[in-house]
Amino acid sequence: MNDQVYIHFLGTGASVPSLKRGLPAAVIMKDQTGILLDCGEGTQLKLLQAGISAAKIRYIVLSHLHGDHLFGLPGFLTSQQMFQRIHPLTLYAPVGIRSFMDCLMQITGFNPTFPFELVELPADESGSLNFNQFDISYRPLDHKSPCLGYHFKEHNKPGKFDAERAEQLGIPHGPERSRLHNGEAVELEDGRIIEPEQVVESPIPGRTISYCTDTRPCDATVELARGSQILIHDATFTEMHKDRAFPTGHSTAVQAAMIAKNANVEKLYLWHLSMRLDKQGEEQSLSEARSVFPESFIAQDLDSICLNRPQ
Amino acid sequence: MNDQVYIHFLGTGASVPSLKRGLPAAVIMKDQTGILLDCGEGTQLKLLQAGISAAKIRYIVLSHLHGDHLFGLPGFLTSQQMFQRIHPLTLYAPVGIRSFMDCLMQITGFNPTFPFELVELPADESGSLNFNQFDISYRPLDHKSPCLGYHFKEHNKPGKFDAERAEQLGIPHGPERSRLHNGEAVELEDGRIIEPEQVVESPIPGRTISYCTDTRPCDATVELARGSQILIHDATFTEMHKDRAFPTGHSTAVQAAMIAKNANVEKLYLWHLSMRLDKQGEEQSLSEARSVFPESFIAQDLDSICLNRPQ
Repeated sequence: MNDQVYIHFLGTGASVPSLKRGLPAAVIMKDQTGILLDCGEGTQLKLLQAGISAAKIRYIVLSHLHGDHLFGLPGFLTSQQMFQRIHPLTLYAPVGIRSFMDCLMQITGFNPTFPFELVELPADESGSLNFNQFDISYRPLDHKSPCLGYHFKEHNKPGKFDAERAEQLGIPHGPERSRLHNGEAVELEDGRIIEPEQVVESPIPGRTISYCTDTRPCDATVELARGSQILIHDATFTEMHKDRAFPTGHSTAVQAAMIAKNANVEKLYLWHLSMRLDKQGEEQSLSEARSVFPESFIAQDLDSICLNRPQ
Repeated sequence: MNDQVYIHFLGTGASVPSLKRGLPAAVIMKDQTGILLDCGEGTQLKLLQAGISAAKIRYIVLSHLHGDHLFGLPGFLTSQQMFQRIHPLTLYAPVGIRSFMDCLMQITGFNPTFPFELVELPADESGSLNFNQFDISYRPLDHKSPCLGYHFKEHNKPGKFDAERAEQLGIPHGPERSRLHNGEAVELEDGRIIEPEQVVESPIPGRTISYCTDTRPCDATVELARGSQILIHDATFTEMHKDRAFPTGHSTAVQAAMIAKNANVEKLYLWHLSMRLDKQGEEQSLSEARSVFPESFIAQDLDSICLNRPQ
């Protein structure tokens, strides 16, 4: 099994597409299984540009139902149908998504023949989900529309198997060793019970990613993102336009950086950048964020990050 | 007034976007007023790439409600709202579009503050419309879903005013001459009635464009497109895949060329090309079409055509 985890940024802009930034979408990819975070208009094209097969997307998770995070979904789904997808796909999104899907089906006749499941999440409650190789927790953020932030915690990996110690304990080569490595106690033929801790080192912790957009700065994000390796956070505005952030339900780069600092994350990626930001504006945004939290970066369309497991 | 008419091809592909071709959309532009033909996902980005301000789109005309022709509409409209559009916008589309718009408004809260009118067209009837500088006729095509083909006829331009003849007839300089040039008879002070034909040459005919997609080859298209300068026609498949054309409700390049020939158009643009067509496939498509109708061309994303008035 491939032990890499990647984040592929597809669209990093806000509200409207620009020549530089597409609308919000990113993929967490592990072992050929992708989780698509939001699905702004143009996501299927961005996947093509990034060289990621849409067939590998196993889960879609939407933060909220504003158009810039949602309008790529109909095209994504109908294209998958067109390509005669066979792999299952599960969509998680705040309540309201079912009406949207019903409308889509009614107007366009879209009726998936691949296994498709839709899960509506109440956007005023916290909760948890379990994907293939990730545990997910989510919390309501503070936006103009019901919006959920998500924390992805990769499952821990069993620690190193101590073969030398196993020999000393007389554990036979075979299934007993596998079971021990997978955290299970085994009884040997002589009646001794061997606990996994006796031959397996501490588990290797999974990677952690938080996706918090769109939102004003809020305590829920700090709780959700606490200790994450990567925090992807709404940073629509620079200080110059900070008076626009609160009424529109967004954050400035500085506010995102404060959240990153308070949540003690490793790296912050500034996300959902206003299309008004030119290169100079971006540099300003980054510099403002770094004045508060040095490990700040700007997410760019089609950038990929490979995450190490936390130390 | 600018007397140019342009067709800007935005997205020329079929069903799913490729790195080369976006989903169907084109603009007829005259005198800073645009008519958007279909609105596939990514149209607002294509407009940006083509350097066409979306604010100049005055009319949107949809052929049918399949996703590849429709899914750019929600983003286009909500972006216009975001940009605080003030110019009016009218959307014409087959019946069903109102439910789609209602759903859009309900889910995303989209509620235009600019003058927005929606006109549902029964897709099983022929009819006519009158836009700013164009007369439009439409007819049901032969697709898998109710679909309309459109013919755009630019208004004729008054013929040249014969100033010498006007002098001979003693027509004073002033409003009388304008009225005559605009096709109105005038009475001079001496009681003589002057008819426009006496001082104005024959009107200069308007340009003609037919947009017929998606469709199997059908008589309605021949009727609609008869004598058009430009016919934009479904040419999803080459001969190699012609068995797929009928069941999917599309045409081959050869079938499009037969229609162009029978309708006696000036130029055919092959449209809605399958994403399976690579460069060699395109050349094949063009060569097949030209074997029937030499004035065939392949529409490419972001190509623009400037139309002369017909001779």
